[in-house]
Amino acid sequence: MASQHITSIFKGGMEFETELHNHKVKIDLFEKDGGKNQGPEPKALMLVSLAGCTGVDIVMILNKMKVGFSNFSIDVDAQLTESVPRIYEFVKLTYRIRVKKHDESKVEKAVDLSQNKYCSVSAMFRKFAKLETEIQFEL
Amino acid sequence: MASQHITSIFKGGMEFETELHNHKVKIDLFEKDGGKNQGPEPKALMLVSLAGCTGVDIVMILNKMKVGFSNFSIDVDAQLTESVPRIYEFVKLTYRIRVKKHDESKVEKAVDLSQNKYCSVSAMFRKFAKLETEIQFEL
Repeated sequence: MASQHITSIFKGGMEFETELHNHKVKIDLFEKDGGKNQGPEPKALMLVSLAGCTGVDIVMILNKMKVGFSNFSIDVDAQLTESVPRIYEFVKLTYRIRVKKHDESKVEKAVDLSQNKYCSVSAMFRKFAKLETEIQFEL
Repeated sequence: MASQHITSIFKGGMEFETELHNHKVKIDLFEKDGGKNQGPEPKALMLVSLAGCTGVDIVMILNKMKVGFSNFSIDVDAQLTESVPRIYEFVKLTYRIRVKKHDESKVEKAVDLSQNKYCSVSAMFRKFAKLETEIQFEL
């Protein structure tokens, strides 16, 4: 069975550092919460994980389909529950991308494949949040 | 309703960059997967989020309890499902910490409070994975 292992080391204040594939990833809290903002706050990293997971799917699928694209970005808008623990309960992914008009349906296919077949982080998010997607084709 | 917003921008290859509280967070894939390893792969960032979320809880609670501690780290061991999408299905958090003997029960209380009350990322993980915890007191 495949597994992953990380170790997060407390560095003082509210800061933790994790070595991940030879990259150091820090988390911290804002000053108002007792930290020194030496890194992002931990929860929002889940949104980076989500955008990255589906993002690389789209790139891989479009590359396989030999679809040229540019200006690709993904917006994530996430709403939190009112009560503690404040989990993400509604998440919207907006894919912004520029492709030739006749390739737009291929982008729609790529987003569908990522969301409904390949993207593990989206699959995990769907276990606790309502996840919606939108594609905006850039001119 | 509180919300969070991020934008992840495609930088070429398999790399995406996200600005998060004035910190740039990159994700990428390994060379074997078509990337250049300019940042961690996206899914594992969820484990960093998990360790950080519960880690800052423990620090805040121990500080409030005026419990001195050192050598604090958190191991995360995560097992993935065999089938695609490969989500985390079993996750073990091992808290390693050095405290005075008479403060050990306070660490247990802090872990319990984080896991069962405050840590939103743990609460989200519990919606898709079995989550276990262990405390190892360092000498």
